[in-house]
Amino acid sequence: MEIVRRVHNMKETARKAREKGRKIGFVPTMGYLHEGHLSLVRRVKEVSDLVVVSVFVNPAQFGPTEDFDRYPRDLTQDADLCVTEGVDYLFAPEGDEIYPRGSCTFVEVSDFSSMLEGVSRPGHFRGVSTVVLKLLEIVKPHVAAFGQKDAQQTIVIRRMVRDLMLDVEVLVLPIVRDKDGVALSSRNVNLTEEERRAARAIPTALREAEKRVADGERDPQAVIGTAREILETEAILRIDYVSLVDMETLLSVEEVAGEMLLAIAVRAGATRLIDNTILRV
Amino acid sequence: MEIVRRVHNMKETARKAREKGRKIGFVPTMGYLHEGHLSLVRRVKEVSDLVVVSVFVNPAQFGPTEDFDRYPRDLTQDADLCVTEGVDYLFAPEGDEIYPRGSCTFVEVSDFSSMLEGVSRPGHFRGVSTVVLKLLEIVKPHVAAFGQKDAQQTIVIRRMVRDLMLDVEVLVLPIVRDKDGVALSSRNVNLTEEERRAARAIPTALREAEKRVADGERDPQAVIGTAREILETEAILRIDYVSLVDMETLLSVEEVAGEMLLAIAVRAGATRLIDNTILRV
Repeated sequence: MEIVRRVHNMKETARKAREKGRKIGFVPTMGYLHEGHLSLVRRVKEVSDLVVVSVFVNPAQFGPTEDFDRYPRDLTQDADLCVTEGVDYLFAPEGDEIYPRGSCTFVEVSDFSSMLEGVSRPGHFRGVSTVVLKLLEIVKPHVAAFGQKDAQQTIVIRRMVRDLMLDVEVLVLPIVRDKDGVALSSRNVNLTEEERRAARAIPTALREAEKRVADGERDPQAVIGTAREILETEAILRIDYVSLVDMETLLSVEEVAGEMLLAIAVRAGATRLIDNTILRV
Repeated sequence: MEIVRRVHNMKETARKAREKGRKIGFVPTMGYLHEGHLSLVRRVKEVSDLVVVSVFVNPAQFGPTEDFDRYPRDLTQDADLCVTEGVDYLFAPEGDEIYPRGSCTFVEVSDFSSMLEGVSRPGHFRGVSTVVLKLLEIVKPHVAAFGQKDAQQTIVIRRMVRDLMLDVEVLVLPIVRDKDGVALSSRNVNLTEEERRAARAIPTALREAEKRVADGERDPQAVIGTAREILETEAILRIDYVSLVDMETLLSVEEVAGEMLLAIAVRAGATRLIDNTILRV
């Protein structure tokens, strides 16, 4: 496996691979890789001739009071995991490679940037769509994979790819959970033992809300209420939002119908956790 | 020459050309082609194996009170001119091909969008950068040419191409002028005879300002004043701006030095005209 640090080297590598007719698969990440990321790598490997994983903690998607500095990093461990998975290139650029001095171009997927996560994290999705577009232009993948955990991100990216007519197939793969049900996240490493124990309420809340819908509940507020009640049993968790939205529009549903996203964001101490499930009625 | 109306056909054509190793040259236009456009086509033809001209009057770059409806259109004439010039593909999509229902992704080159033309035309450059990115993704050119008449547009596009790491060479070619000195513009067809006569003051103002700089004037206000005085001799022209700005930053210069853009925008009746010259000291 080759570790690539410079944009121009990565572009050159991608260009040559494309010229040879090789299919490029891509997994963009912020590093500190876990089984969730690796499930993306494995899937992409099945459908590509060459796999690129990027590790870039993107400053543009963190707000000024957010955890950019605290975000966990371990490139050596990431590289070891990538070697084990048979990744061909680990693209790990420095910040000024992606945002050279004078950079001022931003991509915004306007209809999907200001709700849910966008309320708590203004500017977040502008940062996400901008960096993903840059990475797609550099790596030139035929297929790129993203995790369902960042549900809104996958919707923003799919929309961007469609709107900008990009030639890349977007795969979205299921959330990978730990044995206790908590969704894998690089941020989990920042949780105290007590916070981690409390975080189990998140998948429990999702499962119980799913059950209520399966049992015939059609009032969105009742479904949300079920999830909130379970989260509220853990005093250490502060709820940011529990939302039941249409999968297409991301707007709150007035009735439990169609394909919906039940999304949760909570804070456990200094760590913000998100999780979600797709409901179909 | 083939006229292509659909995005997916154009993408397929471009993909195949690239696979065959053919170099694609591209001239994006809003149609009603004149010698200015054709100078771009000829230059691109010299450096490409295959030339694509697009004709698309981009709604996103017109404000609600602007001349989208009045903008001149004549696809038959454009096609004839393209045939004469040996263009290979004329890409002329309908509006909903470029902006399908639900489109909501925009590209903004923030530092260069709100000054000069951006003051008079809020949202204009967001529309320009968004459509140019889409067209570049569809046509996948190796080289794309733009006219210096839209000076700020060329700066916005160069910046976008650099920031988003796009693999395209941007050519910017000189303004082509009519015998009376007026810069060629599709909008000139909307001028009355009287307005057209008055418009000659624009190139005269640029030339006289150039002379003052050549004669040693180093006060930007004096240079701008010279241009304004000449424009003001034509009562029919309403000055939108006369600006002397740094070519890199597009900020007003405090001293006549380095590489500068002297840019003029005026209204003659319902028609807005722009022109400019580059000054080097």
